[in-house]
Amino acid sequence: MVETAKKINSVALYSSKKNQKVSQILRQLDEISSNLGVKVLYPESSSLKNKKGLSDTRVKKEADLVIAIGGDGTLLSCSRRFGLNGPPILGINLGNLGFLNDIAPNDLTNSLLDIVSGKFIIDVRYFLEARTNGILNKEIALNEIVIHSGSIAQLIEFEVYIDDKFVYRQKADGLIINTPTGSTAYALSGNGPIIHPKVNAISLLPMLPHSLNTRPLIINENSKVLVIPHKKGFLSFDSQSNLKLKKDDEILITKTKRRLQLVHPLDHDFFSACRTKLGWSLGVPVKET
Amino acid sequence: MVETAKKINSVALYSSKKNQKVSQILRQLDEISSNLGVKVLYPESSSLKNKKGLSDTRVKKEADLVIAIGGDGTLLSCSRRFGLNGPPILGINLGNLGFLNDIAPNDLTNSLLDIVSGKFIIDVRYFLEARTNGILNKEIALNEIVIHSGSIAQLIEFEVYIDDKFVYRQKADGLIINTPTGSTAYALSGNGPIIHPKVNAISLLPMLPHSLNTRPLIINENSKVLVIPHKKGFLSFDSQSNLKLKKDDEILITKTKRRLQLVHPLDHDFFSACRTKLGWSLGVPVKET
Amino acid sequence: MVETAKKINSVALYSSKKNQKVSQILRQLDEISSNLGVKVLYPESSSLKNKKGLSDTRVKKEADLVIAIGGDGTLLSCSRRFGLNGPPILGINLGNLGFLNDIAPNDLTNSLLDIVSGKFIIDVRYFLEARTNGILNKEIALNEIVIHSGSIAQLIEFEVYIDDKFVYRQKADGLIINTPTGSTAYALSGNGPIIHPKVNAISLLPMLPHSLNTRPLIINENSKVLVIPHKKGFLSFDSQSNLKLKKDDEILITKTKRRLQLVHPLDHDFFSACRTKLGWSLGVPVKET
Amino acid sequence: MVETAKKINSVALYSSKKNQKVSQILRQLDEISSNLGVKVLYPESSSLKNKKGLSDTRVKKEADLVIAIGGDGTLLSCSRRFGLNGPPILGINLGNLGFLNDIAPNDLTNSLLDIVSGKFIIDVRYFLEARTNGILNKEIALNEIVIHSGSIAQLIEFEVYIDDKFVYRQKADGLIINTPTGSTAYALSGNGPIIHPKVNAISLLPMLPHSLNTRPLIINENSKVLVIPHKKGFLSFDSQSNLKLKKDDEILITKTKRRLQLVHPLDHDFFSACRTKLGWSLGVPVKET
Repeated sequence: MVETAKKINSVALYSSKKNQKVSQILRQLDEISSNLGVKVLYPESSSLKNKKGLSDTRVKKEADLVIAIGGDGTLLSCSRRFGLNGPPILGINLGNLGFLNDIAPNDLTNSLLDIVSGKFIIDVRYFLEARTNGILNKEIALNEIVIHSGSIAQLIEFEVYIDDKFVYRQKADGLIINTPTGSTAYALSGNGPIIHPKVNAISLLPMLPHSLNTRPLIINENSKVLVIPHKKGFLSFDSQSNLKLKKDDEILITKTKRRLQLVHPLDHDFFSACRTKLGWSLGVPVKET
Repeated sequence: MVETAKKINSVALYSSKKNQKVSQILRQLDEISSNLGVKVLYPESSSLKNKKGLSDTRVKKEADLVIAIGGDGTLLSCSRRFGLNGPPILGINLGNLGFLNDIAPNDLTNSLLDIVSGKFIIDVRYFLEARTNGILNKEIALNEIVIHSGSIAQLIEFEVYIDDKFVYRQKADGLIINTPTGSTAYALSGNGPIIHPKVNAISLLPMLPHSLNTRPLIINENSKVLVIPHKKGFLSFDSQSNLKLKKDDEILITKTKRRLQLVHPLDHDFFSACRTKLGWSLGVPVKET
Repeated sequence: MVETAKKINSVALYSSKKNQKVSQILRQLDEISSNLGVKVLYPESSSLKNKKGLSDTRVKKEADLVIAIGGDGTLLSCSRRFGLNGPPILGINLGNLGFLNDIAPNDLTNSLLDIVSGKFIIDVRYFLEARTNGILNKEIALNEIVIHSGSIAQLIEFEVYIDDKFVYRQKADGLIINTPTGSTAYALSGNGPIIHPKVNAISLLPMLPHSLNTRPLIINENSKVLVIPHKKGFLSFDSQSNLKLKKDDEILITKTKRRLQLVHPLDHDFFSACRTKLGWSLGVPVKET
Repeated sequence: MVETAKKINSVALYSSKKNQKVSQILRQLDEISSNLGVKVLYPESSSLKNKKGLSDTRVKKEADLVIAIGGDGTLLSCSRRFGLNGPPILGINLGNLGFLNDIAPNDLTNSLLDIVSGKFIIDVRYFLEARTNGILNKEIALNEIVIHSGSIAQLIEFEVYIDDKFVYRQKADGLIINTPTGSTAYALSGNGPIIHPKVNAISLLPMLPHSLNTRPLIINENSKVLVIPHKKGFLSFDSQSNLKLKKDDEILITKTKRRLQLVHPLDHDFFSACRTKLGWSLGVPVKET
């Protein structure tokens, strides 16, 4: 994470939902931005626009910052849409504080004042991309790519090669390939480790594997992960889009060269988010000392 | 891993055991080395010496290669003794092939011929070191440092800070702090992930923790890990040496600046070692498809 | 498990597959049975019939023993079809020895001789049945009933009540409710415990749960398990049949009153099957001692 | 659990601690008991006595109820002392509500009034006992017996036989053999399942095992568990007393014939205790839906 001092002159407001709470935050952001002399842009892909919005391409060019209003899911879709070659992204969290979006609605004015005046941290994250038989898929994943059979309790058999070396042949409900960002999302449900964003890693995690001696495997983020499923299956990106696979398709998964720039307030703390989100502060007791 | 072509002119032979099998390998290595015109050195700390051996300091200066004969335990103690500022280390495995020592006795002549002529891979690994209340301990760990209560089923309570940020307060039988090298050793028994040697990480793993929401935590290898136990306890280095701790001692764990150079044959393959050692090749079936 | 001495006068031969290997075993069984003076019946639901077969009802009435030829999947479907009010079932395993079918093809003659002359063990197992909003489903499960969202990485939220007491509300990919028989099947992939057939238990196991503090829950086999999903979902019986659920359907899961009688040779040993199937005999080493 | 209506005429007050909080509860209990016309006994083994106390044998004979004041640890030692052939035991919890002692200090008067008038539930639990080379040890365990090496990160190798059948040979830091009661104690830290008190089971759980394919093993409570350690080690009862073992000692572990009678208020609910103690009510979120 690097502190930065770039002045923000224009912000794009994005949400994937349209409800009263979102509308209220929107009006508030609109007002704060006007007061700060910051131009407000409305992407046409956002659920927020009440007039004609801008194309994603123009948003990427013209906005100095995209603000995602919603939960982790909204920030995920915002990042996948604008994050690859676009401006930094800031998350306003409508629900519980998340790992990615850490501005609470009641902090809005002060937080935005700080950020517009350049007082923020840039937290750089990579995406995963996938090539099917050599063809790059247009979808990317900030959290994880999952290769799966399509339905629960249906095995898929696959071989994994890392940097051209054979790793294993597995039968499982699926295989989660996740970034450090994704280590606190779906992979955590699969009993994967928590990986700090500053670790240069990709994690591989078979889901409900057919063998007892599998463990999560953490490899270097520059590795090329080749997965060959021996059955029809699916490729899922951040649980937001699904792609059909044919038997013996070769799926090559690598990190993207360009990275996402997440914006955090200066007092952002990954471990504090862990304590809040994962209940570490609770010290749930098992046994009396 | 980097291929290298440095010519080997002198080898030191090290073992921590002295039995018939070791003696036989020793004679064989002695003979092969003579034939190859390579000078053989005997460290006085080794169990192999039959005449007066060299001090560790002289071995570090004069040997181009140290050969450890034994199992993973022997390679661990050899690395901790000579590895920090010393020559590269090669492991001859008397038992099963290990993750660290991957020359089988029956390959000895050919392997050594290759290595002496510079055909080998250098695999660089870091150690962990610990400061107790600011004082550097002389012991280092290639696999893991464990902070524990000293006995099974006795809790130790401790706080962890990473890079001066509070992480959590835990009650557990102990805390394993391990390198990627150690991820296939004791940490694996504690259900930790397998971390490829090329990932720049340190892993934290509470042992039999008192709370249900702990998970292995993988952080950047340059992190400073501060652990403050709130009870008397012990600090264990690679399960080979133990240090008493006082209540509220501050233990600062970091990686060493200097690294270990492991020597592997050119066809070395981490994932192949996983398949052999961890039984991945077995595909132990749980359910019929 | 109880030894028994009932004379076998008629056997029904069942398989869900029809291939050369099955046909060969079939001819062999036919011949052995003739030699032993035992009448051979062919269920019409079996893939084995080469002439008009008997209805399931007649098989249940007329056969003293049903022999399932195939893998665990075949024995499962045979048990679900004939096991509830029918004759004992014996499994001939065409693949690897299983937990349920433990007669190897090359032991066929001797094994059958023993069994027909009453030298065998009866191993009694229960099924699970499910009522949806009070209506009993016709499907039963020997291994497990799974309540799930229908697709990977799609959460289903549900409440669980046991004997009318609220247990928890969970978000997960699904919930596995399994018998001791099923503890070595799908539940084992989900990290559930191995439950010996003589334990009077039902196991509940959330799949990829959304919270970190869930653990497998083992309850008395006479418990009534009520699950209320708060989303559309599916009910799966032994991964062999699927039933659509509506939002807020009430699913009541209990064991069946009638039980399955499995036939084993006299030297049957559950732990030996564990060692073979789960690789316990391997002593896969992690670390040198 | 069975409701009962036995009138309580005498109570023994037990604690293993002596502090202000305990003394206050003690005075309160003394007063309430006098008001209710119930005789109060003071065991000499208790830390509560301010005058000459009764021997354990007399307490077992003369008390209709023993009240343990403290945490789970106090209830454990009270149960191990008086529970085997003695009166029912009630726990007053000074700290957080526990799985065993579920009367909060602020409910004292009402709870005691109910209990003395026979309005309570008897919850029957078994202990584990151990024979070393045929000799019965005097210690018993309500939660678990642990066979271990004596220190962290030191392996012990052992063979396990159940009802004279070989199960496995393991290397691990230790082996936890626990009752359903113990399934929410130390075994839970070792990732064991939660076993409802009404399941007739014993659980076996290797600690930090040297192999990757071990899983918790749940067997019938009437099983005889024979463990043969191949190294010196220790036998620990409820983490409260330790016994030295010699190499190749044969440890036979079985449940006790006599059982503990725990007293609960009429509204006692195991799953409610799970929610409170294990944080199930928290629904700690991992991922937004």
